[in-house]
Amino acid sequence: MYSFKNDYAEGAHPNILHKLIETNLVQQMGYGEDGYSVEAKEILRQKIQNPDAAIYFVSGGTQTNLIVISFMLRPHEAVISAETGHIYANEAGAIEATGHRIITVETEDGKLKPVDIENTLQAYSLKPHVVKPKLVYISNPTEIGTIYTKSEIDSLSIYCKSKDLYLFLDGARLGHALTAKNNDLTLSDISCNTDVFYIGGTKNGALLGEAIIFNRADLAIDFDYLLKQKGALLAKGRLLGIQFLELFRDDLYFSLAKHANEMAMKIACAIEAQGYSFLTPPHTNQIFPILPKAVIDELMQQYDFYEWKAVDEQRSVVRIITSWATNENMVDAFIDCLKGRITL
Amino acid sequence: MYSFKNDYAEGAHPNILHKLIETNLVQQMGYGEDGYSVEAKEILRQKIQNPDAAIYFVSGGTQTNLIVISFMLRPHEAVISAETGHIYANEAGAIEATGHRIITVETEDGKLKPVDIENTLQAYSLKPHVVKPKLVYISNPTEIGTIYTKSEIDSLSIYCKSKDLYLFLDGARLGHALTAKNNDLTLSDISCNTDVFYIGGTKNGALLGEAIIFNRADLAIDFDYLLKQKGALLAKGRLLGIQFLELFRDDLYFSLAKHANEMAMKIACAIEAQGYSFLTPPHTNQIFPILPKAVIDELMQQYDFYEWKAVDEQRSVVRIITSWATNENMVDAFIDCLKGRITL
Amino acid sequence: MYSFKNDYAEGAHPNILHKLIETNLVQQMGYGEDGYSVEAKEILRQKIQNPDAAIYFVSGGTQTNLIVISFMLRPHEAVISAETGHIYANEAGAIEATGHRIITVETEDGKLKPVDIENTLQAYSLKPHVVKPKLVYISNPTEIGTIYTKSEIDSLSIYCKSKDLYLFLDGARLGHALTAKNNDLTLSDISCNTDVFYIGGTKNGALLGEAIIFNRADLAIDFDYLLKQKGALLAKGRLLGIQFLELFRDDLYFSLAKHANEMAMKIACAIEAQGYSFLTPPHTNQIFPILPKAVIDELMQQYDFYEWKAVDEQRSVVRIITSWATNENMVDAFIDCLKGRITL
Amino acid sequence: MYSFKNDYAEGAHPNILHKLIETNLVQQMGYGEDGYSVEAKEILRQKIQNPDAAIYFVSGGTQTNLIVISFMLRPHEAVISAETGHIYANEAGAIEATGHRIITVETEDGKLKPVDIENTLQAYSLKPHVVKPKLVYISNPTEIGTIYTKSEIDSLSIYCKSKDLYLFLDGARLGHALTAKNNDLTLSDISCNTDVFYIGGTKNGALLGEAIIFNRADLAIDFDYLLKQKGALLAKGRLLGIQFLELFRDDLYFSLAKHANEMAMKIACAIEAQGYSFLTPPHTNQIFPILPKAVIDELMQQYDFYEWKAVDEQRSVVRIITSWATNENMVDAFIDCLKGRITL
Repeated sequence: MYSFKNDYAEGAHPNILHKLIETNLVQQMGYGEDGYSVEAKEILRQKIQNPDAAIYFVSGGTQTNLIVISFMLRPHEAVISAETGHIYANEAGAIEATGHRIITVETEDGKLKPVDIENTLQAYSLKPHVVKPKLVYISNPTEIGTIYTKSEIDSLSIYCKSKDLYLFLDGARLGHALTAKNNDLTLSDISCNTDVFYIGGTKNGALLGEAIIFNRADLAIDFDYLLKQKGALLAKGRLLGIQFLELFRDDLYFSLAKHANEMAMKIACAIEAQGYSFLTPPHTNQIFPILPKAVIDELMQQYDFYEWKAVDEQRSVVRIITSWATNENMVDAFIDCLKGRITL
Repeated sequence: MYSFKNDYAEGAHPNILHKLIETNLVQQMGYGEDGYSVEAKEILRQKIQNPDAAIYFVSGGTQTNLIVISFMLRPHEAVISAETGHIYANEAGAIEATGHRIITVETEDGKLKPVDIENTLQAYSLKPHVVKPKLVYISNPTEIGTIYTKSEIDSLSIYCKSKDLYLFLDGARLGHALTAKNNDLTLSDISCNTDVFYIGGTKNGALLGEAIIFNRADLAIDFDYLLKQKGALLAKGRLLGIQFLELFRDDLYFSLAKHANEMAMKIACAIEAQGYSFLTPPHTNQIFPILPKAVIDELMQQYDFYEWKAVDEQRSVVRIITSWATNENMVDAFIDCLKGRITL
Repeated sequence: MYSFKNDYAEGAHPNILHKLIETNLVQQMGYGEDGYSVEAKEILRQKIQNPDAAIYFVSGGTQTNLIVISFMLRPHEAVISAETGHIYANEAGAIEATGHRIITVETEDGKLKPVDIENTLQAYSLKPHVVKPKLVYISNPTEIGTIYTKSEIDSLSIYCKSKDLYLFLDGARLGHALTAKNNDLTLSDISCNTDVFYIGGTKNGALLGEAIIFNRADLAIDFDYLLKQKGALLAKGRLLGIQFLELFRDDLYFSLAKHANEMAMKIACAIEAQGYSFLTPPHTNQIFPILPKAVIDELMQQYDFYEWKAVDEQRSVVRIITSWATNENMVDAFIDCLKGRITL
Repeated sequence: MYSFKNDYAEGAHPNILHKLIETNLVQQMGYGEDGYSVEAKEILRQKIQNPDAAIYFVSGGTQTNLIVISFMLRPHEAVISAETGHIYANEAGAIEATGHRIITVETEDGKLKPVDIENTLQAYSLKPHVVKPKLVYISNPTEIGTIYTKSEIDSLSIYCKSKDLYLFLDGARLGHALTAKNNDLTLSDISCNTDVFYIGGTKNGALLGEAIIFNRADLAIDFDYLLKQKGALLAKGRLLGIQFLELFRDDLYFSLAKHANEMAMKIACAIEAQGYSFLTPPHTNQIFPILPKAVIDELMQQYDFYEWKAVDEQRSVVRIITSWATNENMVDAFIDCLKGRITL
């Protein structure tokens, strides 16, 4: 059984493991003050072209989201998110557990637009009987594989600023968004247009690790207290620093994401060629084809992937994910299996 | 500068790194359901001689403490801890942030006794104007290097049961306690006498990782929700499973701790031979000698360690920590430096 | 300007004020242990025909909801509510502030049915990545004026029990539901079919005060701690006890609600006679007619009421509320105004 | 049995009850926007000589403390309080339940001095492993009956400002402090020297009610959201407004407190005349004499009061409290009883 179920089925890129071995006995400060973390942050500041950014490394996406959001909001403030947003759909109430409502917006494509925010502000205007929307949470790519354009991010950013709302971008798979074929965003664009965002390592070649980036250092004052309080400050912070150093020293991060995207597009093309459609247009390493159940059953005998939701009695959306580690031979075999099935 | 400042200055034991490389491309389930984690938990259940235990791996001690405690307590319930307890002294309010008071007890040696709990229960009897003490938190070894005897744990356990209190043991450095010369406790004793405890990996050879052990599976129902909610459920849980597998397959965990203890004892003997005393008797890899400031200053020119607190104008307690990675040559050099200083 | 905006524009029923004066200098225990509270609880237990009930008085509905819900849920558990539910629509994030998600269900009539709960349980099945639904919150009457039938409550109760879910009924205006013309529920039915409910005093003749009723005393163990912790335990608890004593000694509570309902029905009949429709069928003291904006504007010159939401460019739903204190002369004048407007 | 156990054993001053009756059927806005509340706030702003103050009425002291503190602090910030402080000793973990540690200071007299704060800041300097002290909580009078002098408040205020700490004064019994014989503070002094304070009504003639006063309006932005979220925004806010109107229109508040103090001093003088000492010097309506257990037992046959703590085997501190409603005849009888006992 080969798995296309997620992008964390394997370990880490070999460069990272070798660097861990190479540096293993070098004594370092604890709690993120090690030299590798310092250097990795400096490189990231260059990549995003923002020398003023305050950067922190933590171990996972849910951890990132809950710490950033609980740090930025006062007790009566709320988050706005697409209903498909990871914080709403997949984090076991992590945000509410810190005391804040997530106000959800139904969307077709998982993306928020200024009009969605505007409608929310109107619906939440009866002060003080409602919460106060204060932070807009978006994901790029979204949880259903779509990506934001530069113009979409720009308009969201302008709207949020005009309403004194924070804009926070979840980049658990940011590499995949930024290396998608029709992407027109850069790390620097994102740094300019959000208050805070994160670059995900776990799903793109690291053992674990996300880089939280506050685009203005003054927004991050005292943030390290929160890291410690929420159990996110690793004693051996070097583990995170070394990984981001390896991923960003030579743009390994982007080449890994590109590989994942290419593998997904290869599968997507084959699926399309068979005449199937998709829940959302395939752009990144997550694709959502709509397949007949008989096809799904047959593929599932050899491949592991996720059945997303039923479309009708005959068909379901499935989620196929590739990663930096996806073996092209297995992609080809999967495509053969798909084609073969149809021929029958 | 060689560091005796903590036991997380280096990376991980080489066996762990090699195993990471060896298993790197084997696809595994995410979120702790990988085969390595499953196997490591089985081994741990054998080591503690408790087939009913429910075991979870997380990345750090503060994370462990806040998740376990917030999981076990209802909103009006509180923890009892020594004032030196890590949850009170070093975790940035992690427990209070989940809504619970830590009631502290002043102690000489960092250890709680039944009488301390009894006094606390009396002081907190004016229901409902006070919180309800419900969980007793102890550390072994304590944060000031002392260790519990079997008889002490037994009597605490009996007392807690009689008062319907949970007993939770923080084992961030449990290996060091259990391999201390005058230790008479086993993992099995601890499993029998506590409701929940954890075995720390971070400070004894792992890159990161603690094993949370509920000694009765029914106490842990739904605990995985909390792991996810608090951001502790790693996508690549294999990273934790592999480490505990390596540490416990061949008792590596204990041999590493033993090395750390021996290095510390070597230093402690030398210090004692010079006529200095200690804040608490040296047992494990953390020792707290009381040294003249001039000696401290000289040692600090070549060695990094922590000045714990001033005793008087001339002397301070310092904390010297060794680890699985401590180089015996550096220990000898440190001792020479200490002796040399005195000769002068 | 006469107000039909809410049912708390006046003070308290005169019986209550006179009893406050009469008992004013009788010394009593504090914190709810006064003789009046004890007696009022005994009377309530008789009215609901449940000698095992544990009863507590607090000052308001939001306070009730947040304390009951945070008391009953563990950290990973969530509430299910209609989207119109007071806890979701009007309480400033009070429930989320205690750490719990409110999962909302869209409804036509503000009422939850077993199928709504079933759908929610299915949507929240991916343990541990989602919260665990555990408590069902309903209001009777609902926030849009509808009421539950006995059979509806029965089927919800049976379904909740079968799924190990708590059923909590918000009775901020319970008197108005139980005295509605087509009501077939009794206090005893509610006590039998819910785990916990509350009887609202504030909106039916009291200065302030809600009676929280746990239908099994074992569910309420330690609840007084929560009352104190959330700032709800009044030093002069007599103020609450005296009011419930007056309201329930002679069924004053129900006669006051009946008056309010009758006043609302009188208005509703007149509105219907004019050919207007309603958002929901009028049953209790809250009615939601759909009126032309010109009519609304004219009425608003003499009467205060709430414009609920626009239906189209010409018409809006308005909310008209009557109370125990509503003056029938003003009701008649309002009807005259409404009729007069139409004649023109 | 006559009670000297607390200052909330009776109802409210008759002026308040009469005003409730007089205004009962006047329709008013809900949620604190009624005309009585508006007028009462205006009078309070005059009394404290601070036109910029933002004032809110809530129902009790614990509610006040938890809302103010959770509103002012960010998640990693903590409160400093005397160990005897009401928030630490008597509020069932209300502050911790909002996520914040209370750092306690042991004192002789229940009062905090700059040096106490300074020591705390030093003990909590290891950022980010500790919480960040940010708000200083004091009570006047303290929970053990002592009062602050103007000079003490001044120096605390200056110190707090120099360290960027908020100063919050709990005035549950502020009337009693300000009418104590040796008091040299005014309401205006308190308003000038604190960031926020409250004036307690419950313990000085009101049915319930505390006035929260932010001395700079900008500190209170959005505070009404918190009131609603924590269940403190009464629908019939008129109940609070009317009471503060009556208490402060003619300085009734101060004359009531003065009566209570005089009754307490009369008892204190008699006790002193019998040769007994006190835990703290008697100043206000709470006195803490140290009496032989035999005397206590005899007094307790006719009078209810609180045994505070044992001093030795023969003697205990007791707490005797008088109030605006204390009957001087009963005070005289109590004194006779005390004297009579001694004669025997």
